[in-house]
Amino acid sequence: MQLGIVGLGRMGGNICRRLLKAGHDTVVYDTSVETREALAKEGATATGSLAMLVKVLDEKPRAVWLMLPAGKITEDCVAQLGDLLEPDDIIIDGGNTFYKDDIRRAKQLAGKRIRYVDCGTSGGVWGLERGYCMMIGGPKEAVDHLDPIFSALAPGLGDISRTPRREKYDPRAERGYIHAGPSGAGHFVKMVHNGIEYGLMQAYAEGFDILRSKDSDDLPADERFSLNLPDIAEVWRRGSVISSWLLDIGAAALAEDPQLAGFSGFVQDSGEGRWTVEAAIEEAVPADVLTASLFARFRSRQEHTFGEKLLSALRLGFGGHVEAPEPNDPGPKAKK
Amino acid sequence: MQLGIVGLGRMGGNICRRLLKAGHDTVVYDTSVETREALAKEGATATGSLAMLVKVLDEKPRAVWLMLPAGKITEDCVAQLGDLLEPDDIIIDGGNTFYKDDIRRAKQLAGKRIRYVDCGTSGGVWGLERGYCMMIGGPKEAVDHLDPIFSALAPGLGDISRTPRREKYDPRAERGYIHAGPSGAGHFVKMVHNGIEYGLMQAYAEGFDILRSKDSDDLPADERFSLNLPDIAEVWRRGSVISSWLLDIGAAALAEDPQLAGFSGFVQDSGEGRWTVEAAIEEAVPADVLTASLFARFRSRQEHTFGEKLLSALRLGFGGHVEAPEPNDPGPKAKK
Amino acid sequence: MQLGIVGLGRMGGNICRRLLKAGHDTVVYDTSVETREALAKEGATATGSLAMLVKVLDEKPRAVWLMLPAGKITEDCVAQLGDLLEPDDIIIDGGNTFYKDDIRRAKQLAGKRIRYVDCGTSGGVWGLERGYCMMIGGPKEAVDHLDPIFSALAPGLGDISRTPRREKYDPRAERGYIHAGPSGAGHFVKMVHNGIEYGLMQAYAEGFDILRSKDSDDLPADERFSLNLPDIAEVWRRGSVISSWLLDIGAAALAEDPQLAGFSGFVQDSGEGRWTVEAAIEEAVPADVLTASLFARFRSRQEHTFGEKLLSALRLGFGGHVEAPEPNDPGPKAKK
Amino acid sequence: MQLGIVGLGRMGGNICRRLLKAGHDTVVYDTSVETREALAKEGATATGSLAMLVKVLDEKPRAVWLMLPAGKITEDCVAQLGDLLEPDDIIIDGGNTFYKDDIRRAKQLAGKRIRYVDCGTSGGVWGLERGYCMMIGGPKEAVDHLDPIFSALAPGLGDISRTPRREKYDPRAERGYIHAGPSGAGHFVKMVHNGIEYGLMQAYAEGFDILRSKDSDDLPADERFSLNLPDIAEVWRRGSVISSWLLDIGAAALAEDPQLAGFSGFVQDSGEGRWTVEAAIEEAVPADVLTASLFARFRSRQEHTFGEKLLSALRLGFGGHVEAPEPNDPGPKAKK
Repeated sequence: MQLGIVGLGRMGGNICRRLLKAGHDTVVYDTSVETREALAKEGATATGSLAMLVKVLDEKPRAVWLMLPAGKITEDCVAQLGDLLEPDDIIIDGGNTFYKDDIRRAKQLAGKRIRYVDCGTSGGVWGLERGYCMMIGGPKEAVDHLDPIFSALAPGLGDISRTPRREKYDPRAERGYIHAGPSGAGHFVKMVHNGIEYGLMQAYAEGFDILRSKDSDDLPADERFSLNLPDIAEVWRRGSVISSWLLDIGAAALAEDPQLAGFSGFVQDSGEGRWTVEAAIEEAVPADVLTASLFARFRSRQEHTFGEKLLSALRLGFGGHVEAPEPNDPGPKAKK
Repeated sequence: MQLGIVGLGRMGGNICRRLLKAGHDTVVYDTSVETREALAKEGATATGSLAMLVKVLDEKPRAVWLMLPAGKITEDCVAQLGDLLEPDDIIIDGGNTFYKDDIRRAKQLAGKRIRYVDCGTSGGVWGLERGYCMMIGGPKEAVDHLDPIFSALAPGLGDISRTPRREKYDPRAERGYIHAGPSGAGHFVKMVHNGIEYGLMQAYAEGFDILRSKDSDDLPADERFSLNLPDIAEVWRRGSVISSWLLDIGAAALAEDPQLAGFSGFVQDSGEGRWTVEAAIEEAVPADVLTASLFARFRSRQEHTFGEKLLSALRLGFGGHVEAPEPNDPGPKAKK
Repeated sequence: MQLGIVGLGRMGGNICRRLLKAGHDTVVYDTSVETREALAKEGATATGSLAMLVKVLDEKPRAVWLMLPAGKITEDCVAQLGDLLEPDDIIIDGGNTFYKDDIRRAKQLAGKRIRYVDCGTSGGVWGLERGYCMMIGGPKEAVDHLDPIFSALAPGLGDISRTPRREKYDPRAERGYIHAGPSGAGHFVKMVHNGIEYGLMQAYAEGFDILRSKDSDDLPADERFSLNLPDIAEVWRRGSVISSWLLDIGAAALAEDPQLAGFSGFVQDSGEGRWTVEAAIEEAVPADVLTASLFARFRSRQEHTFGEKLLSALRLGFGGHVEAPEPNDPGPKAKK
Repeated sequence: MQLGIVGLGRMGGNICRRLLKAGHDTVVYDTSVETREALAKEGATATGSLAMLVKVLDEKPRAVWLMLPAGKITEDCVAQLGDLLEPDDIIIDGGNTFYKDDIRRAKQLAGKRIRYVDCGTSGGVWGLERGYCMMIGGPKEAVDHLDPIFSALAPGLGDISRTPRREKYDPRAERGYIHAGPSGAGHFVKMVHNGIEYGLMQAYAEGFDILRSKDSDDLPADERFSLNLPDIAEVWRRGSVISSWLLDIGAAALAEDPQLAGFSGFVQDSGEGRWTVEAAIEEAVPADVLTASLFARFRSRQEHTFGEKLLSALRLGFGGHVEAPEPNDPGPKAKK
């Protein structure tokens, strides 16, 4: 099957490669000549503009997969394709678009009878080898039409154990992709996926912090442990309830550097965590853990918040307390 | 009435002064000669040792008020007084002792028929003038015996509006002190008081942070406000639902320096916040706000947590994300 | 000065009354004939439609204060007034409108040279007597023009102690109102005010919960206290760091019914708390306490979340644990 | 190698079976005759009392593994074994004991030269088949002596991928057990493991709650999705960043009943979650996610908290709001 791919960064490039490996035909475009030429050498048909890409696609209906940074770049590209494509053609947004933007775009393009598919794509740097987990939203016929593409990109059954009693459910889920619902549903599910990811990461982060800080001078000598974090991460991968892929990655990072000295502790967030909290608020669902995970990242990017200064000002005001700003002072130890 | 006072720091000294002003007789001891001599000049009887203080007290039963840092110092002093005092004498611990220590001490001293009273004392640097709010635990007869002392230290009715329908309740509460229950109950109530204080402070801190950060370059130009925090704090003191004494103090601090530039944002915690959370856990009471307030202080005292470094390591591991550790970078703005 | 008032519910009616008392002239409209007639008897000029109200207003520029539920009702009324009013006339939205709606409306009305003022109004059922605390956004000349109205509605200096070192700041803040900034700034400040309110309330709620649950059979007998909550609330009003207007109200409620048996514990939220969290997210400000307060309300309105059922399902799946759904069971007591 | 086992519940029984399968010799005791006879039929030597068990153990030093509920039962059994055993003998506590109890016991038994080993054991109902993940604390020689036992119980390398760059670390971790440190260290690491488990579970719980509540009448029609949770759980197991063993279990539970109608949502906590938070507090480590996860369970076990009633009382007091206690009402929808 033929697929146009726009955006050949780490994700887009590897998606192209995985499709080529599966025998599909790809027509690609990227603003970087170098990048698109590199893929041409691997078997893709490189083109020099969106218009050219659309022209070169000769299977109808055409299908163009966008793998671009969410926001203005994707927005503009969808708009241009809306002008270039014909009725029945399909645009797939494989990036991390906010699902309400999908809903809006799908409506706009429907006016031109162009079909819009939103595809949340998980897999990161490992997708080329392991396959991509995809959560897809949009019209059924478009999603069905693209099945060979999704099927090739997905991990497939592999050697992951099968979930009992799944016979009555959609077999695509087991192979690593689902049609989640109408436009926006794919990115919505991917968004919540990332929100959960924040929560899982923060749970491990706090746990390892508690392990590491058990070696503190403020604790009674016989309650002080100097724990081997790489070994602990490793043993938890083996038969414990908290084994996971994230833990696998954490174990590798700790094995390489138990102090994680190469990391500043300044942590970005990428949008989905925020939108997940906003969705929780819209639905009146308490989401304490997902939100605390997001806020921990916000806090990690500041030296001190203004709020913290206000706390000190209040303490001075009512109690005459003067804060001693020694770095990393754990404060007066709680007495028992 | 005669009262021994041990520990003449800011709190102890002012308690002594307020009692002198009310015509009570105080016998004082502090390890600092200078401090005790200063109070002698204001009318107190200064003594040079705990033993001497006990000897000089000639009203029986003797009553000795300890106003010392919680922990070992108070513990040692209680032990010594346990040896020096006689049956029916009373020890009052007016500091911030952990209530379970009160329960233990009261039991131990009961063996000698010495009475132990725990008194949580709020009022900070303002107590001399405004009076102290006191939460008292211990045997009823001892608390009743000390009523002239508590009555003199308390703010009294003053011009604070009276709560409707309080006729059937203990009138002491309106005057600023209560007998909360048996040994430990006084410090337990004071402990929860401080736990609430953390929560209130953090609520204001977050709110002012949100106001201040509304002037961020990352926001759309017409949604950006440069707000006058001193005026906002002031107006909220006037007829709004969130007026409080803490807000009064915040308004004063912001009026003096709207940037709070003199504060580092490094915030101590003093024990009661921790114990309050532990009490919540023992009782299986969800206390999300009080706990988050405590953790915000913990976090304020570190440059970066180890947990945050682990987050970065995980992000690198699964997504190839390299964190850009520019200080105070708010991160990629959430798209809508 | 003459003011049109639309919406004569508890807030609108009392605003009208307070203005009448101050000698201002009010022209009012409400869909309820009864309500507007009642105010006519107190001195207002009642009218039977928006159009009539605009016609009756004879001071130019006209000023119309809307005191309506936020959302569609206010939106429609603003739109109608936009058609009825003339250049230089002023619309004041005194309700709880989302500040981004203010920004939009102000822009739209500016096309007709009608001036739009957003006024966050705090004071609740107490405003008539105590005055209203007002946070105002919009063009300076419009706000200045309305000063007699704001001044009459505000509490004024009263007997609240003055904040030291405020000489250099806007004196209006001390009298209970501020011009916070351009369109939307008034409601933004009011929104954060309510966000803080949620946090303060939740801090008290958790604290009193910890006090009350100290009387639990699961605790060791000598660590169990049966505390008098009405007395505790009262004593904290007297010289303690956590005294506040909310505590005054809590003390009154507890004095009337220490068990609060008349309340179900089902707690609404009114929009501002949600918007405050969303603002925090947009600004990348950690707001753990304000968010936890909001989520506690969400949770209070459900019997059990689906998430909790999933927790039980997981516990069964990995550990064979079967949950014992006895109501109010505090669970296995933590051992020490 | 010979091992005594006390306590033959689900965990103890399966530990015995796994050792028998590996060719070890087990001498067992349980208060239930039936239970111990059942294991005798599978190859264990059943005894009728602790004293008898100690007598029958003929390999010196003796080693006795306790697999009992944490608390008084384990405590008593350790005390009795302390009287029955001889110098150099080893007691292994494989249950969920609080690590400070281990530290105390190890000290007490050291006086009799009996060695005490604490072993946190993860694996739940799956351990017999998959092996147990073990975190061990205590004296090195004792732990080394027991290596054949730990090695047999552990999962071994299996087909789990190996962590890169682990050559320089303890190879036992890869096989599923570690010697974490001195007495208490094993249970401390297991405790944090369970704390993390709470956090992971809550992250999934909140995420699935947000997915499920996306089908709410309060949302705009085109933003409402009716999502298939079994398929979503399944697809996330396949190449996504949040795949984990807990997700495997969740997928199975949802496949069996997408509504989880058989679960009440009343969720127990078992001690380790509480102790983890207390450890965080002792170390001044912010642990927002682990704590929120614990509190969500506390909250799940109550119909309404007293705190929530106080919120309603305050809302009535300052705003005249009367709460409408309709069940599962999501409250006024946030306007945008």
